[in-house]
Amino acid sequence: MKTVGVIGLGLIGGSMAIDLKRRGFASTVLGVEQDPVAAEAALTIGLVDKVVDLPECVKEADIIIVAVPVGTAVKMVPAILDMVGEISLKDKIVIDVCSTKEQICKAVKYHPRRRRFVSTHPMAGTEYSGPWAAQPGLFDGRACIFANAEESAPKAVKVIEEMYDVLNMRPLYMNAEQHDLHTAYVSHISHVTSFALALTVLDKEKDEKHIFDLASGGFSSTVRLAKSNPDMWVPILSQNRDNVLRVMDTYIEKMKEFRNAVDQYDEETLRQLILEANRIKKIIR
Amino acid sequence: MKTVGVIGLGLIGGSMAIDLKRRGFASTVLGVEQDPVAAEAALTIGLVDKVVDLPECVKEADIIIVAVPVGTAVKMVPAILDMVGEISLKDKIVIDVCSTKEQICKAVKYHPRRRRFVSTHPMAGTEYSGPWAAQPGLFDGRACIFANAEESAPKAVKVIEEMYDVLNMRPLYMNAEQHDLHTAYVSHISHVTSFALALTVLDKEKDEKHIFDLASGGFSSTVRLAKSNPDMWVPILSQNRDNVLRVMDTYIEKMKEFRNAVDQYDEETLRQLILEANRIKKIIR
Repeated sequence: MKTVGVIGLGLIGGSMAIDLKRRGFASTVLGVEQDPVAAEAALTIGLVDKVVDLPECVKEADIIIVAVPVGTAVKMVPAILDMVGEISLKDKIVIDVCSTKEQICKAVKYHPRRRRFVSTHPMAGTEYSGPWAAQPGLFDGRACIFANAEESAPKAVKVIEEMYDVLNMRPLYMNAEQHDLHTAYVSHISHVTSFALALTVLDKEKDEKHIFDLASGGFSSTVRLAKSNPDMWVPILSQNRDNVLRVMDTYIEKMKEFRNAVDQYDEETLRQLILEANRIKKIIR
Repeated sequence: MKTVGVIGLGLIGGSMAIDLKRRGFASTVLGVEQDPVAAEAALTIGLVDKVVDLPECVKEADIIIVAVPVGTAVKMVPAILDMVGEISLKDKIVIDVCSTKEQICKAVKYHPRRRRFVSTHPMAGTEYSGPWAAQPGLFDGRACIFANAEESAPKAVKVIEEMYDVLNMRPLYMNAEQHDLHTAYVSHISHVTSFALALTVLDKEKDEKHIFDLASGGFSSTVRLAKSNPDMWVPILSQNRDNVLRVMDTYIEKMKEFRNAVDQYDEETLRQLILEANRIKKIIR
């Protein structure tokens, strides 16, 4: 059993803490949380055994999970690897769980302790955030991406694979560039379309009562991601700018095709576009 | 207890049939369905007591529910009102359940039996279609809009209110123009953004395996409506063209604002846009 340190006690860090302890992977979970309200909540809820400061966490933990927004993580991971060097080269593993991988992998590429770092992206979440959003079972059955795993020590990768196995995740391996491209195409664009939908509906429909009254299940599920936290999403969109721009441009084009068909009462084109969109059924149940 | 005739045994017609019978509002449910496969399925599943032709349905039923796509309904409702006239002026009620209301209300405005017609929009559904998609409880707790109710006989409206009360729906009253405007702003745009998202992801992500692997719950819920049937959605978008165009144009503008902020690494604007989008939490749980 390991001592696990979780830096950032939000939805992802908190949910990992719960299941790693409950399922017997971690003997002790230490938490680091700079927001004192969140830190106290995490203790009260029982996400972690103890809230400590960063140096103590790095010193005590066998596995250090960096679960902060990616903009912060890019600076924090090299700093933690520096600290690890001062303490012990052996066995200590640092991982991140961020939604973009290219910049964080670049930031540590030439670090002398690069091989102690494993870059992962457990693909699970909800639109909520903070320790209050943490929940058991969040990761069950989802994919976890290992980015540039060949740059990590095979032993370190093996331990982290075992950890995600306890969380019931399916491992996938790809390089950081591929990861950022494919997540832009599948995950990041969905968030952007939801944000734009919420902005549109709030802008056009001045009377919120109408939104409330007329929102069917369809609207609610389409707009759900628009509740997502800017602290998480601003750095993702910034760090994955090029890929996100590319997919947004395609999206705007598709939207215009649709718009023109509606404009022209071109029912045949509309039908073809919808039938083509329906092919998503092949992939998503 | 009434004899209810349902024309169009799809998701909406079929689901109404189930609960109106089960909950004791209808003694008998007659179905009309032009697709023989769907007709047989509806009988096998037990959605209706009997499948009949349109004239028999109009003759036998006390309440005739027109649950076909709105393009067809616009022609069918006046024809049924003609038939009702030949049989009996008294008590027989015709309703539609379409997602756009302006054109159907226009089509019957000067019909001598206009007052026997009640135009409604029960705001419930799933992305599936056909009698196989019908399910009990589909309407529970949702809103049902009565459009231009003042053009119907008060007695007819009362019976239909009782019917929707059995389906556990909350009645809302508005005129057809308002209905089409507000549903464009809240419901129709969500479908269009989902269709465009599916088209984009299928276009950019050539390897379907990546979509399958990387699709988190967020993507699945945002793209869910893209499975919707073109038979239903082409006529809705066509009939509600002006309102849909207006909201699509606003949507494209919002998307471009977002795009430009990403392009410029303008994190402050991104944060503001996301915070503004987050206000949807005030309205949607």
